[in-house]
Amino acid sequence: MLVIKIGGGAAIGEGGYTNFAEDLATVTEPVVVVHGGNAEFSDLSRRLGMPPRMITSSSGRVTRYTDAATMDSMLMAYCGKVNKRLVATLRAAGVNAVGLSAIDGGIAAGRRKPVLRGTEDGKSKVLRDDHAGTLQAVDPTLIRLLLQNGYTPVLTPPALGEEGVPINVDGDKLALELATALQANGLLFFSDTPGLLRDRHDESSLISEIDASSPESALAAAAGRMVVKVEAALGAVERGVGRVVFADGRSANPIRAALEGKGTTVRHTSSAVSQVESR
Amino acid sequence: MLVIKIGGGAAIGEGGYTNFAEDLATVTEPVVVVHGGNAEFSDLSRRLGMPPRMITSSSGRVTRYTDAATMDSMLMAYCGKVNKRLVATLRAAGVNAVGLSAIDGGIAAGRRKPVLRGTEDGKSKVLRDDHAGTLQAVDPTLIRLLLQNGYTPVLTPPALGEEGVPINVDGDKLALELATALQANGLLFFSDTPGLLRDRHDESSLISEIDASSPESALAAAAGRMVVKVEAALGAVERGVGRVVFADGRSANPIRAALEGKGTTVRHTSSAVSQVESR
Repeated sequence: MLVIKIGGGAAIGEGGYTNFAEDLATVTEPVVVVHGGNAEFSDLSRRLGMPPRMITSSSGRVTRYTDAATMDSMLMAYCGKVNKRLVATLRAAGVNAVGLSAIDGGIAAGRRKPVLRGTEDGKSKVLRDDHAGTLQAVDPTLIRLLLQNGYTPVLTPPALGEEGVPINVDGDKLALELATALQANGLLFFSDTPGLLRDRHDESSLISEIDASSPESALAAAAGRMVVKVEAALGAVERGVGRVVFADGRSANPIRAALEGKGTTVRHTSSAVSQVESR
Repeated sequence: MLVIKIGGGAAIGEGGYTNFAEDLATVTEPVVVVHGGNAEFSDLSRRLGMPPRMITSSSGRVTRYTDAATMDSMLMAYCGKVNKRLVATLRAAGVNAVGLSAIDGGIAAGRRKPVLRGTEDGKSKVLRDDHAGTLQAVDPTLIRLLLQNGYTPVLTPPALGEEGVPINVDGDKLALELATALQANGLLFFSDTPGLLRDRHDESSLISEIDASSPESALAAAAGRMVVKVEAALGAVERGVGRVVFADGRSANPIRAALEGKGTTVRHTSSAVSQVESR
């Protein structure tokens, strides 16, 4: 079973959905698709006169402020336009897709942090009524039921917080937790880069393989957001996911290419696996 | 098993969702919810600078022109905002809700009619790239799977047309076809009126019961859009739906009230049923 995360950047638009759909129609093992929708979300927010407000925390973390009206835009962009256009494209290619948000069927629950503190355009701010939160529990019951009955679930944030409030959770984290809960053979992250790069300005600096048994050199070479990604991938592999691949979502056969080793693959290499197995 | 259609008019907003949620949490038999979203759809379209364009056919039928960008707004309003806010409210009340569009899992398919002819503001028009269509097939497989496993499906238009194109189909028709396919005990339509009225300007002219075995007097009293509703309800009862109720979606306990006989109930009255059964 595979979990595939399709990034929500502008580079993977509706043209990209067709590439994924044609590729997915040829995959024989069960697949769960998780997708983002950030480019559509920002675009809709701007058109509605609510441009994104980015808040930087004291630790340097950048968060998008999500009040109730902005959450409506998130629901509309992620669960409406992106989810249903993707499902329609998949179904037309012969994939038996079912679109869901993580709210549906209790797939993911989280805790809301209504007060957001930090700086905005250099000014100190305390913003209330934020609808961002932390993913706390993933329940794969509904996803398993659909997989067992031949459906391909297509899942998107947000998740459900307390008192029926939808909360903005990270799509990558959702895919990771779901892949772990389902003990997936593979978790493939597709975005608009060829994979993890030693130098993010140089696409030829691709790291093609990271051995989860000795990741020190890869972690030493990594910087910034890449460290977070590598650590998350290592954590998933430790918790039973077969392999994690960071791959290019812009190519014509993105899934096939990722399964054939294009991009960055994080796993226990065969010798390391033998060692583990012989313990 | 009940099918409940919640109208998409402005009168049943997010406050109304709470009434339905509290009521649904007390219903013991399985329920499928179908909802509209027309008020949110029109509101979003206006905010995006694409106000509704209404076309009147030569037979007097009024249709909303839905080009591709308008379909995106429909997806956002119906499948994003309304569907997920309703599901979140239901889940908070303890209902194990799963939100779906009729695109998902092949629930409903239809045929698109890309050319729309008629008059707009009195001027003759031929508009191309329309995304409205006719519902052709309902497949209740996914809905049945969810019901059998304790979920409450929450379903919304659009349906899927050929070549992966979402199409705008009528929500009432969707609920009718689904209730028939599922052989529901009851199909309840909630809107912003107390039921079917002899005089639509007089809420006291409510028709409380229509006997499906002798509907002639009700049909004679009906006019305009009400004839269509009565004929559709009679058709559903003939095809095996236990009863059809047109009820008020604005009341505090809308479902309980409808089941207790408030509104307009269309069914074979007990004597008529006995006659049918003794044949």
